[in-house]
Amino acid sequence: MYYDPVEAMDRAALEELQVERLRETIENAKRSPFYAERFKSIDPNDIRTPADVAKLPFTTKDDLRSQYPHGLLTKPLEEFVRLHASSGTTGTPVAVFYTQKDLDTWADLMARSMYCCGCRKTDVLQNTSGYGLFTGGLGIHYGSERLGMLTIPAGAGNTKRQIKLIRDHQVTVLHIIPSFALYFAQKVREEGFEPEDMPWRIALIGAEPHTEEARAKIEKLMHIKAYNSYGLSEMNGPGVAFECVHQNGMHLWEDAYIAEIINPETGEPVAEGEVGELVMTTLTREGMPIIRYRTRDLTRFIPGKCECGRTHRRIDRITGRADDMMILKGVNIYPMQIEQCLMAMPEVGQNYLIELVSDGISDQMKVKVEIKDEFFVEDMRALQGLQKRIAKNLCSEILVTPRVELCQSDSIPKAEGKAVRVVDLRDKE
Amino acid sequence: MYYDPVEAMDRAALEELQVERLRETIENAKRSPFYAERFKSIDPNDIRTPADVAKLPFTTKDDLRSQYPHGLLTKPLEEFVRLHASSGTTGTPVAVFYTQKDLDTWADLMARSMYCCGCRKTDVLQNTSGYGLFTGGLGIHYGSERLGMLTIPAGAGNTKRQIKLIRDHQVTVLHIIPSFALYFAQKVREEGFEPEDMPWRIALIGAEPHTEEARAKIEKLMHIKAYNSYGLSEMNGPGVAFECVHQNGMHLWEDAYIAEIINPETGEPVAEGEVGELVMTTLTREGMPIIRYRTRDLTRFIPGKCECGRTHRRIDRITGRADDMMILKGVNIYPMQIEQCLMAMPEVGQNYLIELVSDGISDQMKVKVEIKDEFFVEDMRALQGLQKRIAKNLCSEILVTPRVELCQSDSIPKAEGKAVRVVDLRDKE
Ligand SMILES: [Zn+2]
Ligand SMILES: [Zn+2]
Repeated sequence: MYYDPVEAMDRAALEELQVERLRETIENAKRSPFYAERFKSIDPNDIRTPADVAKLPFTTKDDLRSQYPHGLLTKPLEEFVRLHASSGTTGTPVAVFYTQKDLDTWADLMARSMYCCGCRKTDVLQNTSGYGLFTGGLGIHYGSERLGMLTIPAGAGNTKRQIKLIRDHQVTVLHIIPSFALYFAQKVREEGFEPEDMPWRIALIGAEPHTEEARAKIEKLMHIKAYNSYGLSEMNGPGVAFECVHQNGMHLWEDAYIAEIINPETGEPVAEGEVGELVMTTLTREGMPIIRYRTRDLTRFIPGKCECGRTHRRIDRITGRADDMMILKGVNIYPMQIEQCLMAMPEVGQNYLIELVSDGISDQMKVKVEIKDEFFVEDMRALQGLQKRIAKNLCSEILVTPRVELCQSDSIPKAEGKAVRVVDLRDKE
Repeated sequence: MYYDPVEAMDRAALEELQVERLRETIENAKRSPFYAERFKSIDPNDIRTPADVAKLPFTTKDDLRSQYPHGLLTKPLEEFVRLHASSGTTGTPVAVFYTQKDLDTWADLMARSMYCCGCRKTDVLQNTSGYGLFTGGLGIHYGSERLGMLTIPAGAGNTKRQIKLIRDHQVTVLHIIPSFALYFAQKVREEGFEPEDMPWRIALIGAEPHTEEARAKIEKLMHIKAYNSYGLSEMNGPGVAFECVHQNGMHLWEDAYIAEIINPETGEPVAEGEVGELVMTTLTREGMPIIRYRTRDLTRFIPGKCECGRTHRRIDRITGRADDMMILKGVNIYPMQIEQCLMAMPEVGQNYLIELVSDGISDQMKVKVEIKDEFFVEDMRALQGLQKRIAKNLCSEILVTPRVELCQSDSIPKAEGKAVRVVDLRDKE
């Protein structure tokens, strides 16, 4: 029923395991130059509950950069067999090193993750992700082989050939990024096939943040079940948290990681179920343990138990980056909250824009929203009603009532490249 | 001294091992639909020496195509964990399937191959090859990890970033295709570094056929030792044969393969040391054994023992494809023989063209050769002397004396894409 019995381990026993592994991790981390210095006065015996992790200092991306390349390694370089690095030729990159044991641990976590959403040894997985320094490609690849699936390393691009491979080899599981999935569905039709005639049944679409709406669209257009996942190279790569078949949050593997959710401003834990920054600690990585890593990713723990019986807590889909946070009237607001709220309304069109303005006394938020043509009618009352509903929905999400302005299709300028969704027009002192 | 003691095994014992494994391979192959039919009347006990492999029928690329996708598999599909396939969306592709055990065997052969040319656990390997369905990428990757090298899966492209990674992580081994290597050396200089200041010492350049001259140029311009290798996806991928530090032919791993060299016209073995088509039989592949595969690649066994002490025979670099063979006055000639001969002469420039003409009675070969400007002097006697030397050198290589025509630089039209080196102007009946 589970890939590994640890997935349904009793919470008390799981937390005991976490404490034991956290203590070992602290001991082990002290073998690295970085933590040897930083943890000088830390005694592993002070850890008595998983929450005691909060007694340890944070590790930030800047720490990883300043320690580049070897400052966090607990073993001689020759013990490592893999390196992944953040892309880019400017600035100091971040590099993550793996021993053979770390690769095995990671492959097991990946295999467990894919099993969790219904993949089995008898499945055929096609990996349409690029390989290379990006952990998504090799991460899925090793996990898929570990689970025993027939693994087709198709790589990125060449959709026509991908479709042929899927049909020839009866591919049942597709690893595909959300933005490619919709294009893919269209290409399948152009090649003369219907998505429902394709052999696939599962899409792993976790590599990019996306909304629940986007998932629904992918599932409908591809005639597939799409599962979300979470990972980052600092924590190995994919396989940190994965959805089970209930598609209601991602089980975060708590035997391998301690997760905290904190207020990114104060560093304090948020209340149960509230959104904040995810902070991660590795519990099973021998070569490069990282403790209380500030991921900058925003999510929340989903309260309650999952029907699947797994006891590892679930995190919600990532709702943005801590760096994108706006503060308005003392409230933390993330653009993704607004996007999710808007996109859940059938009347809302393709584009929107958030403007932060100041009236000299207090700050205000104005949200310009494109409305689909069929809803942009001449009935003033209907439009005002829609406007109010949008404002109300937004308020219930972000706890601030914005001014809402309805716009016609294509009236908000489309940004080149990454969409600019927030314009801050407040006076800066 | 060796990665695996089998590399220096006594020949008699090695051949015994081959016989034993060939018998097992025949038994195993009969579990596949294709060989069950083809080997109906084959009795493994008829195999008493490795040369008895010649009692078995050939397997051709057309066989693999007609059996696509599953005709050669000896196990249920769910036992397989990897698929590689030839590229292309037109025509029937060739697919190769691997069990986990096959991947392990392949990784071991790759690790042994890299050890053979001087790679060690303490090395850092950067893989600049694309990953995906092409076996070169994942083949080198798995072998490198198996050997325990720190493996950087850089993938293809982005030379600037590749150079940064090489410098940041003190990369000592580079997997690079020959045609990219020369460009790479140039980019290193453009970035303000000298190749001799780069940390690298070994280049694995086997993925593309290339001449001894090309290797010498790479070694000089990159300030590196470059090693050739041989492999093809039908025989796993890279790791079939690899050069040792003596750079004098590639040891073909005879505990894993039986190699024959035959006349591609008659199918009979060629004389010791003669060039012919390489025919390969897998001895350790459980999921998809292939017996007497016609590779269409042309090479020869290099006679004599290698100084390194490895007893596995060496094959020469691939001198062309059986399909490129010309027959002139009853002699088999391959364009690569002519290219190698020409490019070894310092006077010869960039381009040449082979014309096959008929004078009504017999066929003739005319070779047009561009001469470097500094040798294209007005001294008629010097030019005639050069012309004679070229003709003589060619004759000693191909056993036919061609007519040689000296041309000025850039006077032979350059082909777009793949160079056209042979023009057949003979009357066709
Ligand atoms: Zn669940
Ligand atoms: Zn040797």
